[in-house]
Amino acid sequence: MATESIVVPSAPDLHRAAARLRGHIRRTPTFSLADDEVDVPWAGRGVRVVLKLELTQHTGSFKARGALNTLLARPVPEAGVVAASGGNHGAAVAWAASRVGVPAHVFVPATSPSVKVERIESYGAKVVVVDGYYPQALAASREWAAQREVLEIHAYDTPEVVAGQGTLGLELVEQVPEASAVLVSCGGGGLYAGVALALGDSCAVVPVEPERCPTLHLAVSAGRPVRAQVGGVAADSMGAAEAGRIAHAVATSRGTQSVLVSDDAIVAARTFLWERCRILAEPGGATAFAALLSGAFVPEPNTTVVVVVSGGNTTDLPVSRSGELLSPPHAA
Amino acid sequence: MATESIVVPSAPDLHRAAARLRGHIRRTPTFSLADDEVDVPWAGRGVRVVLKLELTQHTGSFKARGALNTLLARPVPEAGVVAASGGNHGAAVAWAASRVGVPAHVFVPATSPSVKVERIESYGAKVVVVDGYYPQALAASREWAAQREVLEIHAYDTPEVVAGQGTLGLELVEQVPEASAVLVSCGGGGLYAGVALALGDSCAVVPVEPERCPTLHLAVSAGRPVRAQVGGVAADSMGAAEAGRIAHAVATSRGTQSVLVSDDAIVAARTFLWERCRILAEPGGATAFAALLSGAFVPEPNTTVVVVVSGGNTTDLPVSRSGELLSPPHAA
Repeated sequence: MATESIVVPSAPDLHRAAARLRGHIRRTPTFSLADDEVDVPWAGRGVRVVLKLELTQHTGSFKARGALNTLLARPVPEAGVVAASGGNHGAAVAWAASRVGVPAHVFVPATSPSVKVERIESYGAKVVVVDGYYPQALAASREWAAQREVLEIHAYDTPEVVAGQGTLGLELVEQVPEASAVLVSCGGGGLYAGVALALGDSCAVVPVEPERCPTLHLAVSAGRPVRAQVGGVAADSMGAAEAGRIAHAVATSRGTQSVLVSDDAIVAARTFLWERCRILAEPGGATAFAALLSGAFVPEPNTTVVVVVSGGNTTDLPVSRSGELLSPPHAA
Repeated sequence: MATESIVVPSAPDLHRAAARLRGHIRRTPTFSLADDEVDVPWAGRGVRVVLKLELTQHTGSFKARGALNTLLARPVPEAGVVAASGGNHGAAVAWAASRVGVPAHVFVPATSPSVKVERIESYGAKVVVVDGYYPQALAASREWAAQREVLEIHAYDTPEVVAGQGTLGLELVEQVPEASAVLVSCGGGGLYAGVALALGDSCAVVPVEPERCPTLHLAVSAGRPVRAQVGGVAADSMGAAEAGRIAHAVATSRGTQSVLVSDDAIVAARTFLWERCRILAEPGGATAFAALLSGAFVPEPNTTVVVVVSGGNTTDLPVSRSGELLSPPHAA
C-alpha cells in the first residue's frame, strides 16, 4: 500500500456513518467510577473516570461499527467480502455480512484464540486458517482476493471502517461532553483515528499501546508506519505489524504520541475491571485502562477522563488478587 | 419474626438513603438493545428493552446499596455487624463494614459458591460456614448474635436495606423515565420492594422468581410468607426459604403476583447476555431477563421495558450455543 494515497475521513463521513448505523449498532453505555477508589493513581485529585463499555457492542467489540458501515456504504459484489483478522475484525465482518446477506471469507492466523474463530463461524462466515500471524493472514487474503471480484475490508486502513469506529466518538460527544481526555486502545489505530476525528480539538484523544505492540509509537517517531515485531498478552487484538496509515496521519496532524503500557499493567487492568466492576474485558480491551491504572497516563486534576473498554472476546477470567486493597474507613 | 410488626420504608426513607449513599455507590449504567434482535419474543412489536447493569455495582450486586445504607443509618456497636447470606448480601455487609471501619461476621451456608465466600473474606470479614442452606445459616447467626451486642442486618426484611435497594429505582426514574415496566429478580424480595416503592404508581414493577424458588408467589397466594423448598440453578442467590414480609406487604398492596421462570430459561438468559452483550451475569442476576426472553412476561407493544441485571458473582462462563440465531439480512 506504500504507493497508494490515503483518504482520511471527514466529519461529514462520520455523521453519514452514524446515520447508516442507527438502529443496527448499540449505543454502548458509560458509567463513572465513584469517588471512593482510594488505591488508584488518580485518587484524591478530583478526577472523574468514565468507562465506555464498548464490549457490549454487537460482536463483542467496536469493530462492528466499521465493518457494517463499510458494507452499507460500498457496493458489494456477489462473491461477497473478504477480511484478514486476528479475530475481532473478522467477527465484525462476518456479522455485518450476515446482516446484509452476502458471503464472507475471513483469513485468520493460526495464533487466533478459538473463542474468536468460533465467533466468526457462528455468524456463518467461511474461516481460512493461515500459519503465522496477522501479516501472513493478510497476505493470504490478498492473494485470494486478487483472483476474484470481492470487496476487501482492511481492518483499519479503510476510510469507511475508520468513519464507522468514529461513531463511538460521536456518542461520547453526547454522553460525556465535559471529557478532557479519551483513552483508547490502539492496534492498527482505526479506533483511535475515528475517535480523534469525531472529537476534533474539543478533547485530547490518547492512543494506548502495549509496549510489545508499539506500532503507532514507532510510526510517529519514524515519520511513517514501519514494520515491528509484536507480541505479548494483547497481541491477538493489538498485534498489527505496522500502524495504519490513516492513524499515523491523524496522530501526526494532532501532534500526538501514544502511551505505552507493559503486559503486567494490562493484566492488572483486566483484573481491576473484573474484580471491582464485573466487566470482563479481553487484554486489548483493557489496554486503555492500563494507562490510567498504572500511572502511565496522568490526568489533570479536576477533569473527566473517558476510558474506552473496547472488547470482551475472551474466555479467561482474571485470577483474583488476594488482599484486594480497600477504601479506608470513613465516618458514618 | 412472625409476631413483630413490619416497617415498610417511605418515599423520604428512600431519598435519605440516596443522599447517604451518594459518592459511595455507583450509579450503574443502562443501555438499550438495538431494534435488530429478531429471534426474540418481543421482536417487531416496537418494544425497547433497556438493561440496567447493576452487576457493575460495588461487590458485584445491588446488595451493596442496602448494606451500606443500613450501616450509615444505624448506630453500630463496637462488636460490629453480623449477617447470614448465601453470598451477595454477605459480601455487601463485609464491604460496607470495611467502609465504616467496624468488624463483620458473615454466616454462610456450606452450599455457597467459593467465589462468593472468597469475596466476603477479601473485604476482611470473618466467615462462618454452616452446614445446610440459608435458613440454617440464618439460625446460627441469630444464636451467635443473641450472645453479644452486635447489629444484625437481615438480607431483605431490614427497612434500611429495602430503602437502600430502592435507590436503584430512584436512578431508573432519572435514567428511563419512559419505562412502563421494570423486571427485577426476586429472592427474599428486598430489591423488588425497594424498586416498587421508588417507582410508585408510575410504572409496573414485576418480580421474577425461579420456579424452584417461588417464595413470593407462594406468599401472595397464601396471604402470608410461607416456608418453601428451594433449589435450582439460581438458589445460591435466590434461595430464601420464605418471602420477605416487606416484599409480601408491598406486592399485596400493589396487587402484584410474581412471574415464574424455569431453570432452562435462566440458563438461556445468561447465555444470551454473554453471547450477545458480553455481560456475565450470575443465574440470579439473569432471572429477570429470563422472563422476557422466554416469553413468560409479554410487554405491551410500543413500550419501554427495563430489565435489572442484578448480580455478577460467578466464575462460570455460559457454554456457547452453536448455531446462534442471527438477524435476517436487510437491504443495504
